Amino acid sequence: MIELNRRQLFAGAATVAAAAAISQCEIPGAEAGVAPAGAQAPGFYRYKVGAYECTSINDGARSFPMPDNFVTNVPKAEATAAAEAAYMPQGMVTVPFNPQLINTGSKLILIDCGNGIATYEPTKGAVGRTLMNLQAAGVDPKSIDIVLMSHLHPDHTNGIRAADGSMAFPNAEIMVPAKDWAFWMSDENAAKAPNDMMKNYFANVRKIYAGIESKVTKYDWDKEVAPGITSIATPGHTPGHTSFVVASGNSKVLLQADVTNIPEFFLRNPDWHVVYDTEPDLAQQTRHKFYDMAAAEKATVVGFHFTFPSIGHVEKDGAKYRLIPSAWNPTI
Amino acid sequence: MIELNRRQLFAGAATVAAAAAISQCEIPGAEAGVAPAGAQAPGFYRYKVGAYECTSINDGARSFPMPDNFVTNVPKAEATAAAEAAYMPQGMVTVPFNPQLINTGSKLILIDCGNGIATYEPTKGAVGRTLMNLQAAGVDPKSIDIVLMSHLHPDHTNGIRAADGSMAFPNAEIMVPAKDWAFWMSDENAAKAPNDMMKNYFANVRKIYAGIESKVTKYDWDKEVAPGITSIATPGHTPGHTSFVVASGNSKVLLQADVTNIPEFFLRNPDWHVVYDTEPDLAQQTRHKFYDMAAAEKATVVGFHFTFPSIGHVEKDGAKYRLIPSAWNPTI
Repeated sequence: MIELNRRQLFAGAATVAAAAAISQCEIPGAEAGVAPAGAQAPGFYRYKVGAYECTSINDGARSFPMPDNFVTNVPKAEATAAAEAAYMPQGMVTVPFNPQLINTGSKLILIDCGNGIATYEPTKGAVGRTLMNLQAAGVDPKSIDIVLMSHLHPDHTNGIRAADGSMAFPNAEIMVPAKDWAFWMSDENAAKAPNDMMKNYFANVRKIYAGIESKVTKYDWDKEVAPGITSIATPGHTPGHTSFVVASGNSKVLLQADVTNIPEFFLRNPDWHVVYDTEPDLAQQTRHKFYDMAAAEKATVVGFHFTFPSIGHVEKDGAKYRLIPSAWNPTI
Repeated sequence: MIELNRRQLFAGAATVAAAAAISQCEIPGAEAGVAPAGAQAPGFYRYKVGAYECTSINDGARSFPMPDNFVTNVPKAEATAAAEAAYMPQGMVTVPFNPQLINTGSKLILIDCGNGIATYEPTKGAVGRTLMNLQAAGVDPKSIDIVLMSHLHPDHTNGIRAADGSMAFPNAEIMVPAKDWAFWMSDENAAKAPNDMMKNYFANVRKIYAGIESKVTKYDWDKEVAPGITSIATPGHTPGHTSFVVASGNSKVLLQADVTNIPEFFLRNPDWHVVYDTEPDLAQQTRHKFYDMAAAEKATVVGFHFTFPSIGHVEKDGAKYRLIPSAWNPTI
């Protein structure tokens, strides 16, 4: 009676596809009542932390050919296998980007601000979507009180500039980790940059912050840097790399920023080193400490490079970790 | 130097939270420039299958106290443990619902249509969101050409009625599996309904379809029921339970409907029986066949009860299966 087999499921479907032009269901010249939209739905997602309304804002996701050294301390074949296991496009690696907006009731704080519109022009709108998605969420960039940077890499900081170079969030105080500012703004460090990637990073920070140094506040670790938002030392990815605890009432979440780059690689394999780390051994040490605690506390973790909506729980799995993405909540 | 420890991460944050009223960052009387929205982002997500533009439409998600017999063939404690492992609310089980809209260019086909607005009123808007999310996606219900039902359970079929009882998709042909129609419309079967749940199901089908029988087309398995959409026999959940292959060009996806209810339970544990199955042993057999093939083909699988956007890949994992949710694509 039941004859579910591969031929039926797939060969049958392929036949249908091949015969699409002469499909018995297709009426020549007919047009559906709604034209294809050709664009994705808005990429924002709201969640509550106590009295705070938070919004994950998708800046997009970038797929690029797997660099030979994307993971610096394992053979490329292992990285490629991890990408395939995550169903990334063949031969590519996909990195998503997700700033977080925190509305405390008294302040609007944007934590990291994405790639900026002009950064990766060849990706045709796949990144630099923060302003568009803030608008979709009903948030005027002029209303942002604070832009709080986890660190000063381009994908986190370049979004402070609009496409024309003006300030994207003209009324916002810009807060940066004091240690990252000192590191990236040091001409001595810049002169020692060991490769083109690092040279570009030093040049980028100078370009992005040129003329707005007076708007920048440097913050330290282990401080309440904005209402209910505490800065946590998680160095290694960069010298000043910072995570945040957002706490209100009895609720809290951990915003990990780049404790890992993509979790399919570096949360699953916490001893893998991403090419972007300035101190990979320290980053690895930070990663274990951070996830051991997050797992023990069953904390909700928000990851800048987790797939949108970028929220989940981290569990220990032997010497590895696993990420359990949170279910989409249709209400908040 | 780095002092990341639990006290710092969590006790510190708790202290901040406890002291929120006197936070040094909080300015009494200050108000953020944007009021909290108090509502979730629109729940729709677009993906391409060849030339077709498809949209996952979230009807919502319902959390309810774990029934004693939600999984009929394992102790309740095992079901509760699975719910906890998936971070569902304490003591509850969460079931999401996701109809799929297929725009073939010539036809707009809605596959299943959700709970309807009035079905679960106590859940306060957590379900019955299909019309709202179609609107958010720019789709006028009048433009739907076909509503294609996988089976005749309330959460799949009741959405054909608007809140006032009128037809939600007034210009649509309604297509139902011939075997399900025969089963649920049989007075002989209704008289034999073994429990209140089944009595309610029989009564519901009669109520929902009262007066519109002439609009209903019955379809058979292994047919192209709409352009590029083939009906696949996956019985057990109900006698006529149907999955679909959607194929265009060289691309295809499998719309599994209720081959499993929530994957955290029944895809992970394919031999568990959900209380809603009419023939649980057959459903179990169907499940293995379906997932063995989906895994072998690395097919993209869309699940009505997967968490939104409800798209992923299924892999064998010994005697179990695992679902790898697809990454959010910011473009299509």
